[in-house]
Amino acid sequence: MKIGLIGLGRMGYNLALNARDKGHDVVVFNRTLEKVHQAEKDGLIGAYSIEDLVQKIEGRRVIWLMVSAGNTVDEMITKLIPLLNEHDIIIDGGNSNYKDTLRRYTELKSKGIDFVDIGTSGGIEGARNGACTMIGAERDVFEFIEPFIKDISIENGYLYTGSNGSGHFVKMVHNGIEYGMMQAIAEGFEILEKSQFNLDFEKVAKVWNNGSVIRGWLMELSENAFKKDPHLDEIKGVMYSSGEGLWTVQEALELKVSATVITQSLLMRYRSEQEDTFSGKVVAALRNEFGGHATKKSE
Amino acid sequence: MKIGLIGLGRMGYNLALNARDKGHDVVVFNRTLEKVHQAEKDGLIGAYSIEDLVQKIEGRRVIWLMVSAGNTVDEMITKLIPLLNEHDIIIDGGNSNYKDTLRRYTELKSKGIDFVDIGTSGGIEGARNGACTMIGAERDVFEFIEPFIKDISIENGYLYTGSNGSGHFVKMVHNGIEYGMMQAIAEGFEILEKSQFNLDFEKVAKVWNNGSVIRGWLMELSENAFKKDPHLDEIKGVMYSSGEGLWTVQEALELKVSATVITQSLLMRYRSEQEDTFSGKVVAALRNEFGGHATKKSE
Repeated sequence: MKIGLIGLGRMGYNLALNARDKGHDVVVFNRTLEKVHQAEKDGLIGAYSIEDLVQKIEGRRVIWLMVSAGNTVDEMITKLIPLLNEHDIIIDGGNSNYKDTLRRYTELKSKGIDFVDIGTSGGIEGARNGACTMIGAERDVFEFIEPFIKDISIENGYLYTGSNGSGHFVKMVHNGIEYGMMQAIAEGFEILEKSQFNLDFEKVAKVWNNGSVIRGWLMELSENAFKKDPHLDEIKGVMYSSGEGLWTVQEALELKVSATVITQSLLMRYRSEQEDTFSGKVVAALRNEFGGHATKKSE
Repeated sequence: MKIGLIGLGRMGYNLALNARDKGHDVVVFNRTLEKVHQAEKDGLIGAYSIEDLVQKIEGRRVIWLMVSAGNTVDEMITKLIPLLNEHDIIIDGGNSNYKDTLRRYTELKSKGIDFVDIGTSGGIEGARNGACTMIGAERDVFEFIEPFIKDISIENGYLYTGSNGSGHFVKMVHNGIEYGMMQAIAEGFEILEKSQFNLDFEKVAKVWNNGSVIRGWLMELSENAFKKDPHLDEIKGVMYSSGEGLWTVQEALELKVSATVITQSLLMRYRSEQEDTFSGKVVAALRNEFGGHATKKSE
């Protein structure tokens, strides 16, 4: 299959190489053109504009967007609309909010263009060697792209999740679960670290990866991390977030799901980005007011 | 190696069969003697009292306790003490609180008896075919039993965690992490279940097990559960707990670790056991008092 791919970030580039290895012709475009030159050396077909990319694909076009969630997706879609034929297919493979996806689907539908949302998991390694993909689309549109999706996914690693938006929705929830699992693992290691026992965290992670209930990829990644840096001295414990955790919590609140663990894991990420907190100042001030308890001066 | 095993519950029985398969002679005792008869049919050596069990082992004895945490462990140790020789070894393979383990270690040490704490993970399947074991002991005592531990553990699935108590401590933290991971997974599926999309949870769990970031044994168990009962209609959402989660939280509090996710997962278990809550009544009453908001009558 000949497909277009817009966005040669780490995920997009590796996905393009993955598709190339499976025998697909991948026409690629990226805002920074150096990456397009590099891609040509790697056996991909370079395009130097959106128009160029569209022209280089024949028949019913499939164009995969792998760009940052948010405005960039809308910009790309706006540019593509006048260039595409009826039933050409735009895939959004990024971490878009499923509500944006539903809005874009309605808009594109009114213009006769088909739209697919794909949640992509497995990190860079997955993108390169076999991703885990969750696909929301009209069924016939899904079936048209299924052979391609199957090729770029790991065995048993793709699922048609149903109507438009469901792919990004399921991926969003996946990321929410990921937040909670990571925070649980992290808290456990902090308890070990502060305990009276002198433990080798790499070895603990390794034994937990062999036969324990909590074995899995995140524990393997923990083992790798402790192997590189036994006490993580080189890393500051600031935990950024990029949206899906927040959206999962917002969704849980709207659906009245008591998702306390996922919510707490998001709040702990926010707290980790703060050097000091205003709420901390308030409590310290109140303890001082009622009991004369010492406060610590701001530096 | 000839070893004694006291407690033929599901974990103990399967561990005994596992050891038998690896060529060990396992002398077994259980309060309910029917299980001892059954064990004899399965190629284990039956003992009909603690005294009988001790007499059937020669040389430096190794006696594995696989009984309920708490008083039963103390009772067994009290019965064993007068029957054992110096440097005989008692192993506690159950989920004992590591503080109890430290107390028992000190007591047994004063009597010249060696003590080992082993945290055992991997469920019944692990006990039968290869467990994940975390071992706290004096190093030379560990080295004496290591060949046996290696045999009953899965490959790379045992770790000498260090001084006495550390095996049960690491296992306790493992279980705390397990609480958090399970609650995160559970909340994610509840968001999916309440969402506007019509999702097949077994298939979602399956795709997440193939290439996603959250793949692992707990997700495989989720897949199995949804395969048996697609909407878990047969199960009431009451989540019992057996101690390790509470101990992990208590430990986190004492060590001043902000283990919010593990704590929340424990609190959600407690909440799940309550049909109604007094705190709920209080809030409902207060809303009624200040705003005339309706309350729901107790049934």
